[in-house]
Amino acid sequence: MAAKLKTAVLGATGYSGLELARLLGRHPRTDAPLLLRRTAEKKTDDSDGHPPGLPHISGNGNLPAPSPVQPFSWSALEQRGVELLFLATPHSVSRELVTEAMTCGLMTRGLRIVDLSGAWRLKQEQHRAVYGFKDVNAQTAAELTERAVYGLPELKANADRIPSAALVANPGCYATSVILALAPLLSAGIVDSDRGIISDSKSGVSGAGKEPTARTHFVSVADNFSAYSVFGHRHTGEILEQLALNSHQLIFTPHLLPIPRGILSTIYVYLKREMSTDEIQRCFQDFYEGKQWVRIFPASSLPQIQFSVHTNYCDLGFCLARDGRRLVIVSCLDNLLKGAAGQAVQNMNLMYGWDETEGLQ
Amino acid sequence: MAAKLKTAVLGATGYSGLELARLLGRHPRTDAPLLLRRTAEKKTDDSDGHPPGLPHISGNGNLPAPSPVQPFSWSALEQRGVELLFLATPHSVSRELVTEAMTCGLMTRGLRIVDLSGAWRLKQEQHRAVYGFKDVNAQTAAELTERAVYGLPELKANADRIPSAALVANPGCYATSVILALAPLLSAGIVDSDRGIISDSKSGVSGAGKEPTARTHFVSVADNFSAYSVFGHRHTGEILEQLALNSHQLIFTPHLLPIPRGILSTIYVYLKREMSTDEIQRCFQDFYEGKQWVRIFPASSLPQIQFSVHTNYCDLGFCLARDGRRLVIVSCLDNLLKGAAGQAVQNMNLMYGWDETEGLQ
Amino acid sequence: MAAKLKTAVLGATGYSGLELARLLGRHPRTDAPLLLRRTAEKKTDDSDGHPPGLPHISGNGNLPAPSPVQPFSWSALEQRGVELLFLATPHSVSRELVTEAMTCGLMTRGLRIVDLSGAWRLKQEQHRAVYGFKDVNAQTAAELTERAVYGLPELKANADRIPSAALVANPGCYATSVILALAPLLSAGIVDSDRGIISDSKSGVSGAGKEPTARTHFVSVADNFSAYSVFGHRHTGEILEQLALNSHQLIFTPHLLPIPRGILSTIYVYLKREMSTDEIQRCFQDFYEGKQWVRIFPASSLPQIQFSVHTNYCDLGFCLARDGRRLVIVSCLDNLLKGAAGQAVQNMNLMYGWDETEGLQ
Amino acid sequence: MAAKLKTAVLGATGYSGLELARLLGRHPRTDAPLLLRRTAEKKTDDSDGHPPGLPHISGNGNLPAPSPVQPFSWSALEQRGVELLFLATPHSVSRELVTEAMTCGLMTRGLRIVDLSGAWRLKQEQHRAVYGFKDVNAQTAAELTERAVYGLPELKANADRIPSAALVANPGCYATSVILALAPLLSAGIVDSDRGIISDSKSGVSGAGKEPTARTHFVSVADNFSAYSVFGHRHTGEILEQLALNSHQLIFTPHLLPIPRGILSTIYVYLKREMSTDEIQRCFQDFYEGKQWVRIFPASSLPQIQFSVHTNYCDLGFCLARDGRRLVIVSCLDNLLKGAAGQAVQNMNLMYGWDETEGLQ
Repeated sequence: MAAKLKTAVLGATGYSGLELARLLGRHPRTDAPLLLRRTAEKKTDDSDGHPPGLPHISGNGNLPAPSPVQPFSWSALEQRGVELLFLATPHSVSRELVTEAMTCGLMTRGLRIVDLSGAWRLKQEQHRAVYGFKDVNAQTAAELTERAVYGLPELKANADRIPSAALVANPGCYATSVILALAPLLSAGIVDSDRGIISDSKSGVSGAGKEPTARTHFVSVADNFSAYSVFGHRHTGEILEQLALNSHQLIFTPHLLPIPRGILSTIYVYLKREMSTDEIQRCFQDFYEGKQWVRIFPASSLPQIQFSVHTNYCDLGFCLARDGRRLVIVSCLDNLLKGAAGQAVQNMNLMYGWDETEGLQ
Repeated sequence: MAAKLKTAVLGATGYSGLELARLLGRHPRTDAPLLLRRTAEKKTDDSDGHPPGLPHISGNGNLPAPSPVQPFSWSALEQRGVELLFLATPHSVSRELVTEAMTCGLMTRGLRIVDLSGAWRLKQEQHRAVYGFKDVNAQTAAELTERAVYGLPELKANADRIPSAALVANPGCYATSVILALAPLLSAGIVDSDRGIISDSKSGVSGAGKEPTARTHFVSVADNFSAYSVFGHRHTGEILEQLALNSHQLIFTPHLLPIPRGILSTIYVYLKREMSTDEIQRCFQDFYEGKQWVRIFPASSLPQIQFSVHTNYCDLGFCLARDGRRLVIVSCLDNLLKGAAGQAVQNMNLMYGWDETEGLQ
Repeated sequence: MAAKLKTAVLGATGYSGLELARLLGRHPRTDAPLLLRRTAEKKTDDSDGHPPGLPHISGNGNLPAPSPVQPFSWSALEQRGVELLFLATPHSVSRELVTEAMTCGLMTRGLRIVDLSGAWRLKQEQHRAVYGFKDVNAQTAAELTERAVYGLPELKANADRIPSAALVANPGCYATSVILALAPLLSAGIVDSDRGIISDSKSGVSGAGKEPTARTHFVSVADNFSAYSVFGHRHTGEILEQLALNSHQLIFTPHLLPIPRGILSTIYVYLKREMSTDEIQRCFQDFYEGKQWVRIFPASSLPQIQFSVHTNYCDLGFCLARDGRRLVIVSCLDNLLKGAAGQAVQNMNLMYGWDETEGLQ
Repeated sequence: MAAKLKTAVLGATGYSGLELARLLGRHPRTDAPLLLRRTAEKKTDDSDGHPPGLPHISGNGNLPAPSPVQPFSWSALEQRGVELLFLATPHSVSRELVTEAMTCGLMTRGLRIVDLSGAWRLKQEQHRAVYGFKDVNAQTAAELTERAVYGLPELKANADRIPSAALVANPGCYATSVILALAPLLSAGIVDSDRGIISDSKSGVSGAGKEPTARTHFVSVADNFSAYSVFGHRHTGEILEQLALNSHQLIFTPHLLPIPRGILSTIYVYLKREMSTDEIQRCFQDFYEGKQWVRIFPASSLPQIQFSVHTNYCDLGFCLARDGRRLVIVSCLDNLLKGAAGQAVQNMNLMYGWDETEGLQ
């Protein structure tokens, strides 16, 4: 039996980091992950009487006690012989750390990285601008930007490059839900993109991160619902790049749902010609033939957030207007699984030649 | 001091009916309303240990004990000298009862009716078809359909006719949120309607009624979110008629939010020409000049459901894309107040020449 | 017509402060309150795109625009001629400010204060210790402690002193729910206190304040429920003092409910002798004869949080075991109204000789 | 490798039944279960557009499509060679069916049954009376009552008998949370039971079953909290019998939480003598030594519902008053797992000599 992969998770106290730690802890092909936090990181958990990490990380069953979350350093990684590093860190931190990993030689010596932030997802400067990255080592950052592979394995261009990638940029949660819904139709050339595509997307609160803010206070969210970042959300660039759209062809509007997790995107497209429900259904099924983590719903039914939460699935369903020209697509996923940690594990599986469902069922 | 208006509420055990009873109970110009239920109606309240009606109806303060809910009959109305009848009944029941009220002579003798169902909202047979009304007395029903006034007083055509109306068809909750958001722009002729208008609308669960069903079970709704009735919701016809749109120009998609009350509609329109934020702001403000129950949000901010819940306001805000051609409007209201009972009281105020805010502050 | 009372609210951006501002804004006998914040106070609202104060404070109807929240100073109070100051400030701040108000002469010149914090509620040093007050002017603080009147007007000892009080210590939300449930029985001498009284109390999240913390993050609260401060909550002392119990006779356990507002206390007592349901019912009714803000539920039914939320009522119901010796009492109220701002207004009404329901219906 | 166990689930469309089907579907030692429903059962699922069974049952990963839910008959069981039948049926149905299984000879021929209802949990007629069973075959029912083993394997008396039991009566969800919290202390003889034990218990809504009722309507539950069945809940008898208490020694009060799943019981006991936190901690740890599905929390922390939901754990924590005589215990579990389907699988594991964690991690 092969030796197990040595992994580490930096940012193991955030929502995505916790979920990653849990998934890697029971993955059949990885050792218990090294859990790390940046020194600057606040230890919010300790203050609420939560036995540090215990129940959330150990999950179901009598697993060995979780390793404690340790302060991060490159030497700690080397000593443990970490082969794959997951970064569940803020954008600017990821941008800086990966550049460091390259300049200090760790990546040259074989360290591979899956970054869950927005640091390396965008090729085009116009889309990257919203992040306002200040690269100290601009040349290395530019090279890494070029080499980074967008980790949405359901698209062929990415699937071809992930197995050999040194740096995988794990997609945004909203972006995953929108791209997977639109890729089959755009790829088939049946969408009238110039008439305008609209994605009205709704996310649970864990998508806003673990930092307590006025916006994530229970009393602000419960019994409420609101739109935010209209015409200005950072995931817009990813969607445009992956689908080869220009910024006039898409409106993406995120909303905050009063639920802990889950995303539902309602997507509106106009078709170039009159089509039948069967044609649309076939278009989705052909595109995702053999893909394990996309479920196409039968014509008469639509996905709901409850169906995909706590799974790694992206669920897709649609309704076609009687005129055969207007299409509403509904796309659902769990923002912490297919939208973050689950997809990161799926990418790991592909990077190491394993079945893409390993450790995710 | 003038004698107080004598009112009755039929269907006083449903959500809208309870809210109406509460509002009329403290309205300065009406007597305590006569509360009625149809004989066939199930008494769901009694079964859940709820002291019948007490806390919900008596509301805040030491009001007199609420009158009990009595079985409905036309003679009971006459005996009490009821001048205005509110119907919070299912569509088909309202259709039948108003026809009866006409044929039995009560409306001729002065009884006025505000109907909260969809029975009398639609003038065009093509839109009315979804309700499948089976009119026993087709001629009277047709005449009443013609005479019924759509009770959205913020539109001038309705405002002119409400004061003298014998039958007011109180608008649907979704329809109110969408029509109020679009009317100023369409009236100004600045929307490219043929490119397509989209309303992605979300409602709390009280909008689905008080009948317990698999869909309204707490476990089905909590932590969930879903679209429904895509391309087929009954409120679509109201929106089209009031805004003089054809069915190819609008997509209206309702969703179920895991909250008790409130509606938020996110509405997408393309403008005929490039416009500025100021122009749009002025368009909304001019249209609603002097209207008490619409609030226009300042350019930098958007309404949220929490802001309008438990009030009779419809809150409107918007974001204009940098290209000045694409507009997102957000419209919020409380589905039981401005979307039902509050608007019914507002209509009553106008029918009797009172200030439209009476009893609603 | 008499001139209206001039009031001010310090801490007008917290949950209780906002509620007070709303209540005073529509109270028939007070001017629009002067809204104040301490200079050190963070302006959490501005950051979440919330049009400052507008929707929350203006409430329903076309009220005049709310006055902006201004920085606090004693001279600002004097200039405006403020007669009654509400403090919705943290414990230590209230302790300091009231002492200042006394030493600077404002209270001598007639300023009266209703303090919503725990600063002045406790007479006994043993109970006050948990707050850890550090009084700069110990003598004045001691005198004020003596003069402060506990603002629970349903107890006769307080009701007698409130009309002439210069300083009213508004009770804690939990304490109100527990004291009102137990006072009639203890006063009647029918409880076997030495066998032990237990109050298992549950509160919505607004009771934990507006400061965003790990504990109030939506994801920590939703789908969750937890006990906290077992054997150590600060409201315990108030309950003991008001009911003349010793600390061995009561266990008070607070819990956090995943709802925005409302408290339900389930209270367990053993009776000294076998009693009937009718006797208990009469005991409650006699004690609260003529009190406007306590509702006694009929024997067959129990209060629920929904019945009292958004009202100033404390609802009381009970179940007696078949042995006639064991009693479960259920007490519900809205923690921001009868548990804070509503009770503060009720106290104001009594301080100025008005009906205790004024402005609260 | 041994042949896999053939199981069936009757009542596979309810919450516990669905959860059982999911657990058995991925259990390493059982075949895909035969899913059954009684002919009389309503198919509530179909009506809400839910692709029949798909998302809930198939769960995570690319499992084979779930077998459809079939109508129940004894011959269907025999044809499939079912060895173990799980009954997730109402009390009276379970009472009748198990009696039938005995009289028709199936149990004699080796069929074993785990019943999730209250039909066979109680030995004493005085406790069983609340169910009002009408046994057609009284003698067989009496024999089965005698033979039935209470399926709480953490208690030694049950653990000894489960491996050979033909009929296991799976405990109630509330009862499990209360018994596991109290058994160590009562067994150690340190509780002053005559002074009174109180369990103030709170459950999520799935505990109330899938049938839509006024009580389970989203609008009745959300933002609400209430006590019910005070002094009269059916689980009281189980707790008394398993802990050998009399009815004067325990008050058990259930409450409805606005969450989908999870139970938290706050339990109050008085100790016979002054004890230390360490002694209590050791008492719990010794009692549950080697038990896989009970977690004892460290002295400084208490369980919360979030920690145990979606696991098969019962989490226990406690606080001791400074006087060393009054103890508050907090017990949490997932009412559909350790409180129902998870415990049923744990019982199956013990009935067939497997590790008690198989299929539950």
